[in-house]
Amino acid sequence: MTSIAHLGPAGSYSELAATNYAHWLKIHHNQLPTLKPYNTIAKAIKAAAIGETDAAVVPIENSIGGSVRDTLDMLWELDNLKIQNNLVIPIHHALLSHADSLNTIKTVYSHPQALTQCQKWLAVNLSTAVQIATSSTTEALPRLSSDKTIAAISPLWAAKLYDIPTLADPINDNPDNATRFWVLGQHLVSHGSHTSLAFRLPDNTPGALLKPLQLFATQGINMSRIESRPTKLALGDYRFFIDIEASLDDPNTQAALQLLKNCTRSLKIFGSYEQIQVQN
Amino acid sequence: MTSIAHLGPAGSYSELAATNYAHWLKIHHNQLPTLKPYNTIAKAIKAAAIGETDAAVVPIENSIGGSVRDTLDMLWELDNLKIQNNLVIPIHHALLSHADSLNTIKTVYSHPQALTQCQKWLAVNLSTAVQIATSSTTEALPRLSSDKTIAAISPLWAAKLYDIPTLADPINDNPDNATRFWVLGQHLVSHGSHTSLAFRLPDNTPGALLKPLQLFATQGINMSRIESRPTKLALGDYRFFIDIEASLDDPNTQAALQLLKNCTRSLKIFGSYEQIQVQN
Repeated sequence: MTSIAHLGPAGSYSELAATNYAHWLKIHHNQLPTLKPYNTIAKAIKAAAIGETDAAVVPIENSIGGSVRDTLDMLWELDNLKIQNNLVIPIHHALLSHADSLNTIKTVYSHPQALTQCQKWLAVNLSTAVQIATSSTTEALPRLSSDKTIAAISPLWAAKLYDIPTLADPINDNPDNATRFWVLGQHLVSHGSHTSLAFRLPDNTPGALLKPLQLFATQGINMSRIESRPTKLALGDYRFFIDIEASLDDPNTQAALQLLKNCTRSLKIFGSYEQIQVQN
Repeated sequence: MTSIAHLGPAGSYSELAATNYAHWLKIHHNQLPTLKPYNTIAKAIKAAAIGETDAAVVPIENSIGGSVRDTLDMLWELDNLKIQNNLVIPIHHALLSHADSLNTIKTVYSHPQALTQCQKWLAVNLSTAVQIATSSTTEALPRLSSDKTIAAISPLWAAKLYDIPTLADPINDNPDNATRFWVLGQHLVSHGSHTSLAFRLPDNTPGALLKPLQLFATQGINMSRIESRPTKLALGDYRFFIDIEASLDDPNTQAALQLLKNCTRSLKIFGSYEQIQVQN
Protein backbone atom coordinates (compact mmCIF):
# COMPACT_ATOMS: atom_id res chain seq x y z
CA MET A 1 0.00 0.00 0.00
CA THR A 2 1.48 3.35 -1.03
CA SER A 3 -1.17 6.02 -0.32
CA ILE A 4 -4.03 6.58 2.16
CA ALA A 5 -6.84 9.15 1.73
CA HIS A 6 -8.30 10.80 4.85
CA LEU A 7 -10.40 13.78 5.92
CA GLY A 8 -8.19 16.81 6.60
CA PRO A 9 -7.03 19.19 7.98
CA ALA A 10 -3.76 18.40 9.79
CA GLY A 11 -4.20 17.43 13.44
CA SER A 12 -7.77 16.11 13.03
CA TYR A 13 -8.82 12.77 14.53
CA SER A 14 -9.09 11.42 10.96
CA GLU A 15 -5.44 12.27 10.30
CA LEU A 16 -4.55 10.69 13.64
CA ALA A 17 -6.37 7.50 12.58
CA ALA A 18 -4.64 7.48 9.17
CA THR A 19 -1.24 8.07 10.81
CA ASN A 20 -1.83 5.17 13.21
CA TYR A 21 -2.86 2.92 10.34
CA ALA A 22 0.28 3.88 8.37
CA HIS A 23 2.34 3.04 11.49
CA TRP A 24 0.57 -0.31 11.80
CA LEU A 25 1.33 -1.07 8.12
CA LYS A 26 5.00 -0.25 8.72
CA ILE A 27 5.27 -2.60 11.71
CA HIS A 28 3.24 -5.48 10.29
CA HIS A 29 3.92 -5.25 6.55
CA ASN A 30 7.05 -3.07 6.30
CA GLN A 31 5.12 -0.56 4.16
CA LEU A 32 5.50 3.25 4.27
CA PRO A 33 2.37 4.76 2.71
CA THR A 34 1.92 8.53 2.21
CA LEU A 35 -1.17 10.32 3.59
CA LYS A 36 -3.41 12.39 1.28
CA PRO A 37 -5.90 14.78 2.98
CA TYR A 38 -9.30 15.57 1.36
CA ASN A 39 -11.74 18.21 2.55
CA THR A 40 -14.82 15.95 2.73
CA ILE A 41 -15.39 12.31 3.71
CA ALA A 42 -17.08 11.71 0.34
CA LYS A 43 -13.99 12.89 -1.58
CA ALA A 44 -11.65 10.72 0.52
CA ILE A 45 -13.83 7.64 -0.11
CA LYS A 46 -14.10 8.36 -3.85
CA ALA A 47 -10.30 8.63 -4.09
CA ALA A 48 -10.01 5.03 -2.87
CA ALA A 49 -12.92 3.87 -5.06
CA ILE A 50 -11.37 5.16 -8.30
CA GLY A 51 -7.84 4.04 -7.34
CA GLU A 52 -6.43 7.53 -6.83
CA THR A 53 -5.28 6.16 -3.46
CA ASP A 54 -4.95 2.58 -2.23
CA ALA A 55 -7.21 3.10 0.77
CA ALA A 56 -9.34 5.66 2.64
CA VAL A 57 -9.43 5.95 6.44
CA VAL A 58 -12.86 7.35 7.36
CA PRO A 59 -14.93 7.68 10.57
CA ILE A 60 -17.89 5.29 10.77
CA GLU A 61 -19.23 5.78 14.29
CA ASN A 62 -18.75 8.11 17.23
CA SER A 63 -19.85 7.38 20.80
CA ILE A 64 -21.56 10.80 21.05
CA GLY A 65 -22.86 11.65 17.58
CA GLY A 66 -23.61 8.11 16.44
CA SER A 67 -23.14 6.81 12.90
CA VAL A 68 -21.35 8.89 10.30
CA ARG A 69 -24.04 9.02 7.65
CA ASP A 70 -21.82 10.13 4.77
CA THR A 71 -19.63 7.05 5.23
CA LEU A 72 -22.56 4.60 5.37
CA ASP A 73 -24.31 6.15 2.35
CA MET A 74 -21.14 6.28 0.23
CA LEU A 75 -20.22 2.69 1.10
CA TRP A 76 -23.67 1.54 -0.07
CA GLU A 77 -23.49 3.49 -3.33
CA LEU A 78 -19.95 2.45 -4.33
CA ASP A 79 -19.94 -1.26 -5.10
CA ASN A 80 -16.17 -1.81 -5.13
CA LEU A 81 -15.15 -0.70 -1.63
CA LYS A 82 -14.61 -3.17 1.21
CA ILE A 83 -13.39 -2.88 4.79
CA GLN A 84 -9.66 -3.55 5.14
CA ASN A 85 -9.36 -2.72 8.84
CA ASN A 86 -11.15 -1.19 11.84
CA LEU A 87 -9.54 1.31 14.24
CA VAL A 88 -10.91 2.74 17.49
CA ILE A 89 -9.43 6.13 18.42
CA PRO A 90 -10.11 7.47 21.94
CA ILE A 91 -11.39 11.06 22.04
CA HIS A 92 -8.89 13.09 24.03
CA HIS A 93 -9.68 16.81 23.89
CA ALA A 94 -7.19 19.37 25.22
CA LEU A 95 -7.41 23.12 25.72
CA LEU A 96 -4.66 24.73 23.63
CA SER A 97 -3.66 28.38 24.10
CA HIS A 98 -0.70 30.73 24.46
CA ALA A 99 -2.46 32.28 27.51
CA ASP A 100 -0.55 32.19 30.82
CA SER A 101 -3.61 30.95 32.73
CA LEU A 102 -7.29 30.10 32.25
CA ASN A 103 -8.26 33.48 33.77
CA THR A 104 -7.19 35.48 30.72
CA ILE A 105 -9.10 33.41 28.12
CA LYS A 106 -12.09 35.24 26.66
CA THR A 107 -12.96 33.06 23.64
CA VAL A 108 -12.92 29.30 22.96
CA TYR A 109 -12.99 27.94 19.40
CA SER A 110 -13.78 24.39 18.27
CA HIS A 111 -15.97 22.13 16.17
CA PRO A 112 -19.58 22.13 17.53
CA GLN A 113 -19.32 18.42 18.51
CA ALA A 114 -16.13 19.06 20.50
CA LEU A 115 -17.69 22.07 22.25
CA THR A 116 -20.70 19.88 23.15
CA GLN A 117 -18.42 17.17 24.52
CA CYS A 118 -16.71 19.64 26.91
CA GLN A 119 -19.73 21.63 28.17
CA LYS A 120 -19.44 20.53 31.81
CA TRP A 121 -15.73 21.31 31.96
CA LEU A 122 -16.30 24.70 30.26
CA ALA A 123 -19.14 25.57 32.70
CA VAL A 124 -16.81 25.01 35.67
CA ASN A 125 -13.52 26.36 34.30
CA LEU A 126 -14.36 28.92 31.59
CA SER A 127 -17.93 29.91 32.42
CA THR A 128 -17.65 33.46 31.04
CA ALA A 129 -15.72 32.66 27.83
CA VAL A 130 -17.58 33.01 24.52
CA GLN A 131 -17.77 29.74 22.56
CA ILE A 132 -17.38 30.01 18.78
CA ALA A 133 -17.98 27.11 16.37
CA THR A 134 -15.42 26.27 13.66
CA SER A 135 -15.54 23.69 10.85
CA SER A 136 -12.91 21.45 12.46
CA THR A 137 -11.15 21.02 15.83
CA THR A 138 -7.92 22.45 14.40
CA GLU A 139 -9.16 25.31 12.19
CA ALA A 140 -8.52 28.03 14.82
CA LEU A 141 -5.01 26.85 15.76
CA PRO A 142 -3.01 29.07 13.34
CA ARG A 143 -4.67 32.15 14.94
CA LEU A 144 -3.70 31.32 18.55
CA SER A 145 -0.12 32.68 18.38
CA SER A 146 -1.28 36.24 17.67
CA ASP A 147 -3.87 36.44 20.48
CA LYS A 148 -3.29 35.28 24.06
CA THR A 149 -7.00 35.71 25.00
CA ILE A 150 -8.20 32.89 22.73
CA ALA A 151 -8.08 29.11 23.12
CA ALA A 152 -9.05 26.10 21.03
CA ILE A 153 -10.38 22.67 21.98
CA SER A 154 -8.34 20.25 19.86
CA PRO A 155 -6.99 16.70 19.95
CA LEU A 156 -4.02 16.56 22.37
CA TRP A 157 -2.06 15.29 19.40
CA ALA A 158 -2.49 18.64 17.58
CA ALA A 159 -0.65 20.49 20.39
CA LYS A 160 2.64 18.87 19.38
CA LEU A 161 1.93 19.23 15.66
CA TYR A 162 1.22 22.98 15.89
CA ASP A 163 3.64 23.60 18.79
CA ILE A 164 1.02 25.23 21.05
CA PRO A 165 1.01 24.85 24.87
CA THR A 166 -1.64 22.63 26.48
CA LEU A 167 -3.46 24.49 29.30
CA ALA A 168 -5.72 21.62 30.39
CA ASP A 169 -6.07 17.99 29.36
CA PRO A 170 -8.21 15.91 29.01
CA ILE A 171 -11.24 18.21 29.17
CA ASN A 172 -13.93 16.01 27.56
CA ASP A 173 -16.74 15.36 30.06
CA ASN A 174 -16.86 11.63 29.39
CA PRO A 175 -13.44 9.91 29.36
CA ASP A 176 -14.74 6.78 27.56
CA ASN A 177 -15.67 8.48 24.29
CA ALA A 178 -14.15 7.15 21.11
CA THR A 179 -14.51 7.25 17.34
CA ARG A 180 -14.40 4.14 15.18
CA PHE A 181 -12.75 4.33 11.73
CA TRP A 182 -12.84 1.96 8.80
CA VAL A 183 -9.99 1.54 6.36
CA LEU A 184 -11.70 1.14 2.97
CA GLY A 185 -10.01 -0.43 -0.05
CA GLN A 186 -10.77 -2.65 -3.00
CA HIS A 187 -10.04 -6.12 -1.54
CA LEU A 188 -12.55 -8.29 0.28
CA VAL A 189 -11.11 -9.53 3.59
CA SER A 190 -12.78 -12.71 4.82
CA HIS A 191 -11.04 -13.21 8.17
CA GLY A 192 -11.46 -11.25 11.43
CA SER A 193 -13.43 -11.04 14.67
CA HIS A 194 -16.24 -8.94 13.14
CA THR A 195 -18.06 -8.79 9.79
CA SER A 196 -20.12 -5.89 8.39
CA LEU A 197 -22.93 -6.09 5.86
CA ALA A 198 -26.01 -4.20 4.68
CA PHE A 199 -29.31 -5.01 3.00
CA ARG A 200 -32.79 -3.82 2.11
CA LEU A 201 -35.87 -5.82 3.06
CA PRO A 202 -38.42 -7.22 0.60
CA ASP A 203 -41.34 -4.76 0.22
CA ASN A 204 -39.44 -2.30 2.47
CA THR A 205 -41.24 -3.44 5.63
CA PRO A 206 -39.08 -3.03 8.76
CA GLY A 207 -41.24 -5.74 10.37
CA ALA A 208 -39.44 -8.20 8.09
CA LEU A 209 -36.20 -7.36 9.92
CA LEU A 210 -36.95 -10.06 12.50
CA LYS A 211 -36.13 -12.87 10.04
CA PRO A 212 -32.52 -11.81 9.20
CA LEU A 213 -31.78 -11.26 12.92
CA GLN A 214 -33.17 -14.72 13.73
CA LEU A 215 -30.88 -16.29 11.10
CA PHE A 216 -27.79 -15.00 12.88
CA ALA A 217 -29.12 -15.98 16.33
CA THR A 218 -29.86 -19.52 15.10
CA GLN A 219 -26.21 -19.85 14.02
CA GLY A 220 -25.08 -18.61 17.46
CA ILE A 221 -23.79 -15.34 15.99
CA ASN A 222 -24.14 -12.18 18.09
CA MET A 223 -24.95 -8.82 16.52
CA SER A 224 -22.89 -5.90 17.83
CA ARG A 225 -24.56 -3.06 15.93
CA ILE A 226 -27.59 -2.24 13.80
CA GLU A 227 -28.15 1.04 11.98
CA SER A 228 -30.96 2.07 9.64
CA ARG A 229 -30.49 4.59 6.84
CA PRO A 230 -33.20 5.90 4.50
CA THR A 231 -33.02 4.71 0.88
CA LYS A 232 -33.80 8.37 -0.03
CA LEU A 233 -36.68 7.15 -2.21
CA ALA A 234 -39.61 7.53 0.18
CA LEU A 235 -40.33 8.00 3.88
CA GLY A 236 -40.33 4.66 5.74
CA ASP A 237 -38.05 2.92 3.22
CA TYR A 238 -34.74 1.88 4.85
CA ARG A 239 -31.53 -0.03 4.37
CA PHE A 240 -29.97 -1.75 7.38
CA PHE A 241 -26.27 -1.87 8.26
CA ILE A 242 -25.34 -4.72 10.60
CA ASP A 243 -22.11 -5.77 12.34
CA ILE A 244 -21.83 -9.37 13.57
CA GLU A 245 -19.27 -10.93 15.89
CA ALA A 246 -18.06 -13.61 13.49
CA SER A 247 -15.66 -14.05 10.61
CA LEU A 248 -16.83 -14.22 6.99
CA ASP A 249 -14.97 -17.51 6.49
CA ASP A 250 -16.66 -19.12 9.52
CA PRO A 251 -19.04 -21.91 8.28
CA ASN A 252 -21.81 -20.58 10.60
CA THR A 253 -21.56 -17.15 8.96
CA GLN A 254 -21.64 -18.72 5.50
CA ALA A 255 -24.75 -20.73 6.45
CA ALA A 256 -26.52 -17.59 7.74
CA LEU A 257 -25.56 -15.57 4.66
CA GLN A 258 -26.89 -18.27 2.30
CA LEU A 259 -30.33 -18.02 3.98
CA LEU A 260 -30.06 -14.23 4.30
CA LYS A 261 -30.16 -13.90 0.50
CA ASN A 262 -33.71 -15.30 0.53
CA CYS A 263 -35.15 -12.81 3.02
CA THR A 264 -33.36 -9.62 1.96
CA ARG A 265 -32.62 -7.77 -1.26
CA SER A 266 -29.48 -5.91 -2.41
CA LEU A 267 -27.40 -7.75 0.22
CA LYS A 268 -23.89 -6.22 0.41
CA ILE A 269 -20.97 -7.82 2.26
CA PHE A 270 -18.29 -5.34 3.31
CA GLY A 271 -15.89 -7.92 4.78
CA SER A 272 -14.27 -8.99 8.06
CA TYR A 273 -11.78 -7.18 10.29
CA GLU A 274 -10.07 -7.19 13.68
CA GLN A 275 -10.60 -4.29 16.07
CA ILE A 276 -7.38 -2.24 16.46
CA GLN A 277 -7.42 -0.17 19.68
CA VAL A 278 -5.23 2.92 19.35
CA GLN A 279 -3.73 4.74 22.35
CA ASN A 280 -3.18 8.48 21.99
CA MET B 1 -54.13 24.51 23.31
CA THR B 2 -52.99 28.14 23.12
CA SER B 3 -49.34 28.09 21.97
CA ILE B 4 -47.09 25.91 19.79
CA ALA B 5 -43.28 26.04 19.72
CA HIS B 6 -41.47 25.32 16.45
CA LEU B 7 -38.09 25.74 14.77
CA GLY B 8 -37.93 29.09 12.92
CA PRO B 9 -37.42 31.10 10.76
CA ALA B 10 -40.61 32.08 8.91
CA GLY B 11 -41.28 29.98 5.81
CA SER B 12 -39.40 26.90 7.02
CA TYR B 13 -40.90 23.42 6.75
CA SER B 14 -41.16 23.38 10.56
CA GLU B 15 -43.31 26.52 10.51
CA LEU B 16 -45.39 24.95 7.73
CA ALA B 17 -45.93 21.87 9.91
CA ALA B 18 -46.86 24.00 12.94
CA THR B 19 -49.27 26.09 10.82
CA ASN B 20 -50.93 22.95 9.50
CA TYR B 21 -51.29 21.58 13.01
CA ALA B 22 -52.81 24.87 14.22
CA HIS B 23 -55.26 24.67 11.31
CA TRP B 24 -56.12 21.06 12.24
CA LEU B 25 -56.75 22.14 15.85
CA LYS B 26 -59.08 24.89 14.63
CA ILE B 27 -61.14 22.50 12.48
CA HIS B 28 -61.29 19.59 14.94
CA HIS B 29 -61.22 21.34 18.32
CA ASN B 30 -62.17 24.95 17.55
CA GLN B 31 -58.86 26.13 19.02
CA LEU B 32 -56.73 29.01 17.71
CA PRO B 33 -53.20 28.56 19.07
CA THR B 34 -50.38 31.06 18.45
CA LEU B 35 -47.04 29.93 16.96
CA LYS B 36 -43.76 30.65 18.78
CA PRO B 37 -40.54 30.23 16.74
CA TYR B 38 -37.26 29.10 18.41
CA ASN B 39 -33.84 29.03 16.77
CA THR B 40 -32.98 25.41 17.64
CA ILE B 41 -35.00 22.19 17.88
CA ALA B 42 -33.72 21.71 21.45
CA LYS B 43 -35.09 25.10 22.54
CA ALA B 44 -38.49 24.44 20.95
CA ILE B 45 -38.74 21.05 22.73
CA LYS B 46 -37.64 22.52 26.08
CA ALA B 47 -40.33 25.23 25.79
CA ALA B 48 -43.00 22.50 25.70
CA ALA B 49 -41.28 20.48 28.45
CA ILE B 50 -41.28 23.37 30.96
CA GLY B 51 -44.76 24.54 29.97
CA GLU B 52 -43.66 27.77 28.27
CA THR B 53 -45.81 26.51 25.37
CA ASP B 54 -48.50 23.81 25.25
CA ALA B 55 -46.76 21.82 22.52
CA ALA B 56 -43.72 21.70 20.22
CA VAL B 57 -43.91 20.68 16.55
CA VAL B 58 -40.51 19.19 15.64
CA PRO B 59 -39.08 17.13 12.74
CA ILE B 60 -38.40 13.50 13.62
CA GLU B 61 -37.46 11.90 10.29
CA ASN B 62 -36.66 12.96 6.75
CA SER B 63 -36.71 10.65 3.72
CA ILE B 64 -33.25 11.89 2.62
CA GLY B 65 -31.33 12.74 5.81
CA GLY B 66 -32.89 10.09 8.06
CA SER B 67 -33.69 10.55 11.75
CA VAL B 68 -33.42 13.96 13.37
CA ARG B 69 -30.99 13.12 16.14
CA ASP B 70 -31.63 16.21 18.28
CA THR B 71 -35.32 15.30 18.53
CA LEU B 72 -34.68 11.65 19.48
CA ASP B 73 -32.01 12.54 22.05
CA MET B 74 -34.09 15.30 23.66
CA LEU B 75 -37.20 13.10 23.83
CA TRP B 76 -35.20 10.43 25.66
CA GLU B 77 -33.70 12.91 28.14
CA LEU B 78 -36.93 14.76 29.01
CA ASP B 79 -39.22 12.40 30.85
CA ASN B 80 -42.43 14.42 30.63
CA LEU B 81 -42.91 14.80 26.86
CA LYS B 82 -45.24 12.53 24.87
CA ILE B 83 -46.37 12.43 21.25
CA GLN B 84 -49.69 14.23 20.70
CA ASN B 85 -49.80 13.89 16.90
CA ASN B 86 -47.79 12.91 13.82
CA LEU B 87 -47.68 14.97 10.59
CA VAL B 88 -46.11 14.12 7.24
CA ILE B 89 -45.15 17.16 5.16
CA PRO B 90 -44.18 16.59 1.49
CA ILE B 91 -40.92 18.25 0.45
CA HIS B 92 -41.75 20.69 -2.33
CA HIS B 93 -38.74 22.83 -3.24
CA ALA B 94 -39.14 25.82 -5.55
CA LEU B 95 -36.62 28.17 -7.16
CA LEU B 96 -37.44 31.70 -6.00
CA SER B 97 -35.91 34.75 -7.69
CA HIS B 98 -36.68 38.21 -9.09
CA ALA B 99 -34.71 37.24 -12.24
CA ASP B 100 -36.61 37.38 -15.56
CA SER B 101 -35.30 33.97 -16.62
CA LEU B 102 -33.00 31.15 -15.50
CA ASN B 103 -30.27 32.43 -17.86
CA THR B 104 -29.46 35.47 -15.72
CA ILE B 105 -29.03 33.57 -12.41
CA LYS B 106 -25.41 33.39 -11.25
CA THR B 107 -25.80 32.22 -7.62
CA VAL B 108 -28.17 29.82 -5.83
CA TYR B 109 -28.57 29.91 -2.05
CA SER B 110 -30.13 27.26 0.20
CA HIS B 111 -29.67 24.90 3.14
CA PRO B 112 -27.09 22.17 2.26
CA GLN B 113 -29.79 19.44 2.46
CA ALA B 114 -32.03 21.31 0.01
CA LEU B 115 -29.11 21.89 -2.38
CA THR B 116 -28.33 18.15 -2.22
CA GLN B 117 -31.97 17.29 -2.95
CA CYS B 118 -31.94 19.39 -6.16
CA GLN B 119 -28.52 18.46 -7.62
CA LYS B 120 -29.88 16.76 -10.75
CA TRP B 121 -32.21 19.65 -11.57
CA LEU B 122 -29.40 22.17 -10.94
CA ALA B 123 -26.97 20.23 -13.16
CA VAL B 124 -29.43 20.40 -16.08
CA ASN B 125 -30.90 23.88 -15.58
CA LEU B 126 -28.31 25.98 -13.70
CA SER B 127 -25.06 24.13 -14.37
CA THR B 128 -22.84 27.25 -14.20
CA ALA B 129 -24.46 28.89 -11.16
CA VAL B 130 -22.44 28.95 -7.92
CA GLN B 131 -24.17 27.13 -5.03
CA ILE B 132 -23.86 28.72 -1.59
CA ALA B 133 -24.96 27.04 1.65
CA THR B 134 -27.13 28.94 4.18
CA SER B 135 -28.37 27.92 7.62
CA SER B 136 -32.00 27.52 6.50
CA THR B 137 -33.98 27.32 3.25
CA THR B 138 -35.35 30.84 3.77
CA GLU B 139 -32.33 32.73 5.14
CA ALA B 140 -31.36 34.23 1.75
CA LEU B 141 -34.89 35.37 0.80
CA PRO B 142 -34.69 38.96 2.20
CA ARG B 143 -31.65 39.55 -0.07
CA LEU B 144 -33.34 38.49 -3.34
CA SER B 145 -35.14 41.80 -4.01
CA SER B 146 -31.89 43.78 -4.30
CA ASP B 147 -30.14 41.41 -6.72
CA LYS B 148 -31.74 39.85 -9.82
CA THR B 149 -28.77 37.49 -10.40
CA ILE B 150 -29.40 35.43 -7.26
CA ALA B 151 -31.97 32.75 -6.48
CA ALA B 152 -32.92 30.63 -3.46
CA ILE B 153 -34.23 27.08 -3.15
CA SER B 154 -37.09 27.35 -0.64
CA PRO B 155 -40.40 25.70 0.20
CA LEU B 156 -43.01 26.77 -2.38
CA TRP B 157 -44.98 28.04 0.59
CA ALA B 158 -42.29 30.68 1.32
CA ALA B 159 -42.82 32.29 -2.12
CA LYS B 160 -46.23 33.57 -1.03
CA LEU B 161 -45.04 34.52 2.46
CA TYR B 162 -42.11 36.62 1.19
CA ASP B 163 -43.89 37.72 -2.04
CA ILE B 164 -41.11 36.49 -4.36
CA PRO B 165 -41.79 35.06 -7.88
CA THR B 166 -41.40 31.29 -8.40
CA LEU B 167 -39.16 30.58 -11.42
CA ALA B 168 -39.41 26.77 -11.32
CA ASP B 169 -41.36 24.31 -9.18
CA PRO B 170 -41.02 21.57 -7.98
CA ILE B 171 -37.28 21.21 -8.49
CA ASN B 172 -36.45 18.44 -5.98
CA ASP B 173 -35.03 15.41 -7.82
CA ASN B 174 -37.25 12.90 -6.03
CA PRO B 175 -40.95 13.90 -5.88
CA ASP B 176 -41.78 11.43 -3.07
CA ASN B 177 -39.58 13.00 -0.40
CA ALA B 178 -41.22 14.03 2.84
CA THR B 179 -40.47 15.03 6.42
CA ARG B 180 -42.29 13.58 9.40
CA PHE B 181 -43.03 15.81 12.40
CA TRP B 182 -44.16 14.97 15.91
CA VAL B 183 -46.31 17.24 18.02
CA LEU B 184 -44.88 16.89 21.55
CA GLY B 185 -46.83 17.79 24.69
CA GLN B 186 -47.34 16.65 28.25
CA HIS B 187 -50.28 14.21 27.84
CA LEU B 188 -49.97 10.50 27.08
CA VAL B 189 -52.23 9.57 24.15
CA SER B 190 -53.15 5.88 24.14
CA HIS B 191 -55.16 5.62 20.91
CA GLY B 192 -53.97 5.76 17.29
CA SER B 193 -52.70 3.64 14.38
CA HIS B 194 -49.05 3.79 15.51
CA THR B 195 -47.17 3.75 18.84
CA SER B 196 -43.60 4.90 19.51
CA LEU B 197 -41.31 3.73 22.30
CA ALA B 198 -37.62 3.46 23.18
CA PHE B 199 -35.43 1.27 25.40
CA ARG B 200 -31.94 0.15 26.27
CA LEU B 201 -30.99 -3.51 26.34
CA PRO B 202 -29.66 -5.38 29.39
CA ASP B 203 -25.82 -5.40 29.31
CA ASN B 204 -25.96 -3.13 26.21
CA THR B 205 -25.69 -6.05 23.78
CA PRO B 206 -27.40 -5.30 20.45
CA GLY B 207 -27.69 -9.09 20.01
CA ALA B 208 -30.38 -8.99 22.71
CA LEU B 209 -32.50 -6.89 20.34
CA LEU B 210 -33.96 -10.06 18.82
CA LYS B 211 -36.11 -10.76 21.91
CA PRO B 212 -38.07 -7.46 21.95
CA LEU B 213 -38.71 -7.73 18.20
CA GLN B 214 -39.96 -11.31 18.64
CA LEU B 215 -42.41 -10.15 21.35
CA PHE B 216 -44.14 -7.80 18.91
CA ALA B 217 -44.14 -10.39 16.10
CA THR B 218 -45.70 -12.99 18.43
CA GLN B 219 -48.57 -10.56 19.11
CA GLY B 220 -49.04 -10.01 15.36
CA ILE B 221 -47.75 -6.44 15.61
CA ASN B 222 -45.69 -5.06 12.71
CA MET B 223 -42.74 -2.73 13.26
CA SER B 224 -42.58 0.27 10.92
CA ARG B 225 -39.27 1.77 12.04
CA ILE B 226 -36.21 1.06 14.15
CA GLU B 227 -33.47 3.55 14.93
CA SER B 228 -30.41 3.19 17.15
CA ARG B 229 -28.83 6.11 18.99
CA PRO B 230 -25.67 6.02 21.11
CA THR B 231 -26.16 6.40 24.87
CA LYS B 232 -23.11 8.74 24.70
CA LEU B 233 -21.46 6.71 27.47
CA ALA B 234 -19.26 4.39 25.41
CA LEU B 235 -18.85 3.13 21.86
CA GLY B 236 -21.19 0.21 21.13
CA ASP B 237 -23.75 1.21 23.79
CA TYR B 238 -27.11 2.10 22.18
CA ARG B 239 -30.72 2.96 22.85
CA PHE B 240 -33.34 1.82 20.33
CA PHE B 241 -36.34 3.84 19.11
CA ILE B 242 -39.13 1.71 17.67
CA ASP B 243 -42.46 2.51 15.97
CA ILE B 244 -45.12 -0.22 15.88
CA GLU B 245 -48.34 -0.38 13.87
CA ALA B 246 -50.70 -0.78 16.82
CA SER B 247 -52.47 1.33 19.40
CA LEU B 248 -51.28 1.55 23.00
CA ASP B 249 -54.76 0.58 24.27
CA ASP B 250 -54.84 -2.56 22.09
CA PRO B 251 -54.68 -5.68 24.38
CA ASN B 252 -51.99 -7.21 22.10
CA THR B 253 -49.80 -4.14 22.57
CA GLN B 254 -50.34 -4.25 26.32
CA ALA B 255 -49.38 -7.95 26.40
CA ALA B 256 -46.19 -7.26 24.42
CA LEU B 257 -45.27 -4.28 26.61
CA GLN B 258 -45.70 -6.31 29.81
CA LEU B 259 -43.14 -8.85 28.55
CA LEU B 260 -40.94 -6.11 27.05
CA LYS B 261 -40.21 -4.79 30.56
CA ASN B 262 -38.43 -8.06 31.36
CA CYS B 263 -36.02 -7.98 28.42
CA THR B 264 -35.20 -4.26 28.23
CA ARG B 265 -34.21 -1.50 30.65
CA SER B 266 -35.27 2.17 30.81
CA LEU B 267 -38.33 1.40 28.65
CA LYS B 268 -40.04 4.67 27.61
CA ILE B 269 -43.48 4.84 26.00
CA PHE B 270 -44.06 8.00 23.95
CA GLY B 271 -47.71 7.27 23.08
CA SER B 272 -49.99 6.56 20.11
CA TYR B 273 -50.98 8.75 17.17
CA GLU B 274 -52.66 8.81 13.77
CA GLN B 275 -50.68 9.79 10.68
CA ILE B 276 -51.85 13.18 9.32
CA GLN B 277 -50.87 13.63 5.66
CA VAL B 278 -50.50 17.32 4.77
CA GLN B 279 -50.82 18.65 1.20
CA ASN B 280 -48.81 21.74 0.34
